[in-house]
Amino acid sequence: MTRVLKAGVLGATGTVGQRFILLLSEHPGFSIHTLGASPRSAGKPYNKATKWKMSQPIPASVRDMVVQTCEPLKEFLECDVVFSGLDADVAGDIEMAFLKADLALFSNAKNYRTNEDVPLIVPLVNSSHFDLLAHQRNKHQLKKGFLVTNANCSTSGLVVPLKALQDAFGPLSKIIVTTMQAVSGAGYPGVPSLDILDNVVPYIGGEEPKMEWETLKILGGLNQDATAFDLLKTTKVSATCNRVPVLDGHTECVSIEFERRPAPSVEEVIQVLENYRSEAQELGCHSAPDQAIIVSREDDRPQPRLDRENGKGYSVTVGRVRPCNVFDIKFTLLAHNTILGAAGSGVLLAELAQKKGLIA
Amino acid sequence: MTRVLKAGVLGATGTVGQRFILLLSEHPGFSIHTLGASPRSAGKPYNKATKWKMSQPIPASVRDMVVQTCEPLKEFLECDVVFSGLDADVAGDIEMAFLKADLALFSNAKNYRTNEDVPLIVPLVNSSHFDLLAHQRNKHQLKKGFLVTNANCSTSGLVVPLKALQDAFGPLSKIIVTTMQAVSGAGYPGVPSLDILDNVVPYIGGEEPKMEWETLKILGGLNQDATAFDLLKTTKVSATCNRVPVLDGHTECVSIEFERRPAPSVEEVIQVLENYRSEAQELGCHSAPDQAIIVSREDDRPQPRLDRENGKGYSVTVGRVRPCNVFDIKFTLLAHNTILGAAGSGVLLAELAQKKGLIA
Amino acid sequence: MTRVLKAGVLGATGTVGQRFILLLSEHPGFSIHTLGASPRSAGKPYNKATKWKMSQPIPASVRDMVVQTCEPLKEFLECDVVFSGLDADVAGDIEMAFLKADLALFSNAKNYRTNEDVPLIVPLVNSSHFDLLAHQRNKHQLKKGFLVTNANCSTSGLVVPLKALQDAFGPLSKIIVTTMQAVSGAGYPGVPSLDILDNVVPYIGGEEPKMEWETLKILGGLNQDATAFDLLKTTKVSATCNRVPVLDGHTECVSIEFERRPAPSVEEVIQVLENYRSEAQELGCHSAPDQAIIVSREDDRPQPRLDRENGKGYSVTVGRVRPCNVFDIKFTLLAHNTILGAAGSGVLLAELAQKKGLIA
Amino acid sequence: MTRVLKAGVLGATGTVGQRFILLLSEHPGFSIHTLGASPRSAGKPYNKATKWKMSQPIPASVRDMVVQTCEPLKEFLECDVVFSGLDADVAGDIEMAFLKADLALFSNAKNYRTNEDVPLIVPLVNSSHFDLLAHQRNKHQLKKGFLVTNANCSTSGLVVPLKALQDAFGPLSKIIVTTMQAVSGAGYPGVPSLDILDNVVPYIGGEEPKMEWETLKILGGLNQDATAFDLLKTTKVSATCNRVPVLDGHTECVSIEFERRPAPSVEEVIQVLENYRSEAQELGCHSAPDQAIIVSREDDRPQPRLDRENGKGYSVTVGRVRPCNVFDIKFTLLAHNTILGAAGSGVLLAELAQKKGLIA
Ligand SMILES: NC(=O)c1ccc[n+]([C@@H]2O[C@H](COP(=O)([O-])OP(=O)(O)OC[C@H]3O[C@@H](n4cnc5c(N)ncnc54)[C@H](OP(=O)(O)O)[C@@H]3O)[C@@H](O)[C@H]2O)c1
Ligand SMILES: NC(=O)c1ccc[n+]([C@@H]2O[C@H](COP(=O)([O-])OP(=O)(O)OC[C@H]3O[C@@H](n4cnc5c(N)ncnc54)[C@H](OP(=O)(O)O)[C@@H]3O)[C@@H](O)[C@H]2O)c1
Repeated sequence: MTRVLKAGVLGATGTVGQRFILLLSEHPGFSIHTLGASPRSAGKPYNKATKWKMSQPIPASVRDMVVQTCEPLKEFLECDVVFSGLDADVAGDIEMAFLKADLALFSNAKNYRTNEDVPLIVPLVNSSHFDLLAHQRNKHQLKKGFLVTNANCSTSGLVVPLKALQDAFGPLSKIIVTTMQAVSGAGYPGVPSLDILDNVVPYIGGEEPKMEWETLKILGGLNQDATAFDLLKTTKVSATCNRVPVLDGHTECVSIEFERRPAPSVEEVIQVLENYRSEAQELGCHSAPDQAIIVSREDDRPQPRLDRENGKGYSVTVGRVRPCNVFDIKFTLLAHNTILGAAGSGVLLAELAQKKGLIA
Repeated sequence: MTRVLKAGVLGATGTVGQRFILLLSEHPGFSIHTLGASPRSAGKPYNKATKWKMSQPIPASVRDMVVQTCEPLKEFLECDVVFSGLDADVAGDIEMAFLKADLALFSNAKNYRTNEDVPLIVPLVNSSHFDLLAHQRNKHQLKKGFLVTNANCSTSGLVVPLKALQDAFGPLSKIIVTTMQAVSGAGYPGVPSLDILDNVVPYIGGEEPKMEWETLKILGGLNQDATAFDLLKTTKVSATCNRVPVLDGHTECVSIEFERRPAPSVEEVIQVLENYRSEAQELGCHSAPDQAIIVSREDDRPQPRLDRENGKGYSVTVGRVRPCNVFDIKFTLLAHNTILGAAGSGVLLAELAQKKGLIA
Repeated sequence: MTRVLKAGVLGATGTVGQRFILLLSEHPGFSIHTLGASPRSAGKPYNKATKWKMSQPIPASVRDMVVQTCEPLKEFLECDVVFSGLDADVAGDIEMAFLKADLALFSNAKNYRTNEDVPLIVPLVNSSHFDLLAHQRNKHQLKKGFLVTNANCSTSGLVVPLKALQDAFGPLSKIIVTTMQAVSGAGYPGVPSLDILDNVVPYIGGEEPKMEWETLKILGGLNQDATAFDLLKTTKVSATCNRVPVLDGHTECVSIEFERRPAPSVEEVIQVLENYRSEAQELGCHSAPDQAIIVSREDDRPQPRLDRENGKGYSVTVGRVRPCNVFDIKFTLLAHNTILGAAGSGVLLAELAQKKGLIA
Repeated sequence: MTRVLKAGVLGATGTVGQRFILLLSEHPGFSIHTLGASPRSAGKPYNKATKWKMSQPIPASVRDMVVQTCEPLKEFLECDVVFSGLDADVAGDIEMAFLKADLALFSNAKNYRTNEDVPLIVPLVNSSHFDLLAHQRNKHQLKKGFLVTNANCSTSGLVVPLKALQDAFGPLSKIIVTTMQAVSGAGYPGVPSLDILDNVVPYIGGEEPKMEWETLKILGGLNQDATAFDLLKTTKVSATCNRVPVLDGHTECVSIEFERRPAPSVEEVIQVLENYRSEAQELGCHSAPDQAIIVSREDDRPQPRLDRENGKGYSVTVGRVRPCNVFDIKFTLLAHNTILGAAGSGVLLAELAQKKGLIA
């Protein structure tokens, strides 16, 4: 039995923070030790500080916990792991301070994802990138601390099937993806109802370049001594991101061309997706889903309302795998944006880090 | 002044039929002469036969008009033009009977779109295909009748900017398009609310092959003696169609590769789209919009709720024109599915036919 | 330990039937023994016969179970309890046939609710009405069978707080209630999306008289020898029912006048609601919620999305308890329409019947 | 012909301000002369200063108009009428400054509605309250200026049928009303989508007391010398206000008891509602609808999506008139919250003021 880890949550009052609290409170491997948010919230009991928007009630264990400021002091220093759901505006400085305090930090914010010493890991995809942490600790003179980031919510769903296909069939040459993203991805208050009722907003600031670039880092490798990332060089990704009137669950329509000729058949692709297993599953991580990728053979799936809870929100559901007139194959995928795409990724990364001996 | 045409509407009680009635009742060039629907509806006054779902009230002129069966009898024979918004299940036989009765027929149904003697015309795009009607009349021994079909609602929006670009820059080699389609496109009762609230349905039966094939016929030409269609041979189209919780207005995300090298720049593309003019405009058709294509330079447009009424529903709004990492350019377009994509197309086709002297 | 009961479900493919299947499959006290639906569905494996619309997947145990016709034959005769989620069109005859076959039947349909030999029971309210079953069995010459109905979904939520108040403060003289009901209450396909997106439908056929009448039977008593129902005579109920774009959960705004003068204060009302306990709780029924009525003191609750799962869907959430300018008090309540208001009621009724020794 | 009035709009960039701009730009009797908003917007061209959310495009005439600060200077002093759609936070001081500058002011804000010198007028109801302006001018020593307020959006719809009934049948003793209000009533950004998708919010801050109190002032009279308001004393109003996922149009379910015995019948009530005419109609005001109250006899109307544009948004649609089990009658009404309930009221008030000779 692994020991129960004391967990801190930064940005605990936000949409991602609320999801962290739900996931951690039901998790046998963590106890919620301290919660941090902005000075506006600090000093208040959690249920007064947050506008709770989850459909399950606030866990009793945190209702009255007093929210702290986001500084590496007191209870935060006692945490085995710290999860960050901070706004990008403030995540930069706060996370750096926590790292310097030698804490083990799992961040949802975009600030350090492109940093050359910081792994960007989707737990069902590139857990091998944890290997770079030795180099990171060295460089920042850390003993037990480290900083790992998870990917943008829309990238997180995309790279799971891409990784399965790349492993099986070699490099992907071209990827065109169009997303239909849930409003919870914009936090709270986030998207105004006047913008999204009876409407689609065909733009999400900064999202497309993030998807295009993050994919190349995540699907790429490390150099030989695990001191640098080798981004994919021959894969081209083009993303179009839309907001739709859906609460949770990002849907993505993907067309792919393989380098390999002849390209794999639809049946081969389905087989590979269904059989894909990640290290998180091999190591028996608590939150790893039975199936990383669930392939639906029904015409009209995946659907956010019906499939976002698959694998408790940790699976990617893929459907409509079929030939593409222009590339080789196309399919539609669905991922839960605040579980697989945010807080759940953080939790699974912490489980992986513990299994890999990175947490004392 | 052209004379006012007597118009009949087949399938007058459906979603497309209701739109026909709104458009025709406000139109100086038509008078609604007779309405047809199923035997279930025939014999009832229109306002009892239909479940009216438009946000404008039923025009007074048709409220009490008695619905007829869809046979080429009595008042239908007196019509100068007949518009069909029939279900595909029944459109085949009924439309053929009307054609044989030498009536001028504009159909929304899919049944004859692929027929080698029947033009498939998007009025802002390929009005030149009316030229094939001489051959059609010849073959079917018609004096004044003919049958023209308009395209599927999602095709109708797509081909307008594609035509502008093809005219200006030569053949398009590859097109990948992902749609987010309104529920009115499925008629009434159509999409159940349990399927679409807080949801996306990533599939619309038959829609993708329609978009892929219709585009090749519409953007293609006629042979030299105007007796056959020359479909595009070098353009590849791949479509993915989704249903979203939007009432009216189909949004489409498009990536394009040109044959020509170097490809046109984003600015050149925008110029060409903005300056595009169709024959319907040149001939001064009543319903032709001032601008066939409205280009928005704002980040987050077009949006169905804000842009579907542009050009009274006859314009295509294009936004987010930008480079594509994989192809040359990408953009997002919006078209009103029951105006430009259905009934409005029919009306504009009739205006064109009249201008071209095809209606006595 | 009570023994596990074999359960049959009539109308198993519908919205209520699907909810029965979810509830029963997770329930330690029942095993799903047989499923019945229309001749259209009979003979097919369950997952082919139904259009599954729950956000949890179809339980593995029923996926491949072959659907039967709704006749009291074979496996149905082996059932300890039969739950009916049949359409009112067919429920009358089928349920009577099952009753004549001496089966224990719990019905969601409206057909027998007004019958003078059939209890209409909301399990958290009037389980005392089970006492009439001796008379029913007598009259219909049944040994082990009986028929109990549960209330309409909107009535089911309303009567729980009304019962608590009536028990504590005596008769209610006037009740005005306005509902905002979820689309799942209309089954599948049910409410067309064209009717409900960006809209409210201020009418639900037959619903208002049902709420008004059922309340009087449920809150009334039995005569001395438990052979007839004594409906409330001095309470007046006026209901207005609306459909809103919500998936699950009926919200109801209630104004109440008490007979008693002075009327109880808001604080007394809240106390009584919070402390209300029903027989289902006293007897330790598995599905009975910890709190029958959860009172929220926040301004803006209850909300369907946030509160419908309270008590696993078996609690009624009441909020905004405050004085009424016209009557005495007013409040807003929320109940899960397919759990507390339909299938869950059936399940809890069966638990009660077993505890009361009505099931052999 | 009356002369064209120069109009200023305060709070021109907000939801109500945008509606003012649409209504005024299409109005033959007004020319938009100047636009005011917060210091954040001042100095910018209108189309940069506002986040335009109407489904019709920004009128060309105001696109590039430079937004001013809200001070009674320059162009504002040249205005014949000034409309205010200001936030209540700032409306108090700004409107007082404009009044002191002797301007004719029509305000949507709540600040002065309860003031004993300020008329609160719903133009289809109590235009007789303009008579108090002589007293107001006297007291504030104004020559041509004055301040009139219009009612809250939910009150505005309610009082129209109430007035018709009170005029015809004498005092109403009891009114219970439950609203289902559109999100546009909360301005922009207003209601977060996470709060309203698949949801109802059973609370709108401050709305219920406003409806309850404003009704008494609007339906009341003036004292003999028109220097004070006589509020209704014997009518009791109880309001419950909900927010629903609807863009525009407030739906209200109303139960009414008359003082008079016997109470009027449903048919008498319908007659009175249908025949109701207000002074705005008698005087031939441009924006006054043909019918102040449209009575629908269909079961399932009024519906916001289908009826909010009735009378160009200036009519109230009433449906479901029927007996009430508890009071005398009940019905459901619908009013466009930003036209009849806000900007349209302002415009119609200005038309009335001009007809009454209050504007030089
Ligand atoms: N939503 C998603 O699906 C998703 C997916 C992947 C990644 N992300 C990323 O996750 C992060 C959080 O997103 P969200 O959707 O949860 O946003 P959110 O709902 O806006 O929450 C933001 C959180 O940051 C805190 N915060 C703001 N200013 C602060 C300060 N000065 N000091 C300390 N804490 C401060 C807020 O606390 P207060 O309540 O006290 O203001 C709140 O807890 C963002 O970086 C986002 O890009 C989101
Ligand atoms: N909605 C769109 O955006 C769109 C766009 C482009 C093309 N289309 C095409 O337009 C057609 C109509 O679509 P819709 O959305 O309007 O469908 P809809 O709402 O289902 O209307 C169908 C119409 O067909 C009539 N009809 C059915 N059976 C008939 C029979 N046996 N004899 C005569 N009339 C019969 C119906 O009359 P009753 O009321 O009497 O049953 C009704 O008027 C379809 O072919 C569709 O594919 C639709």
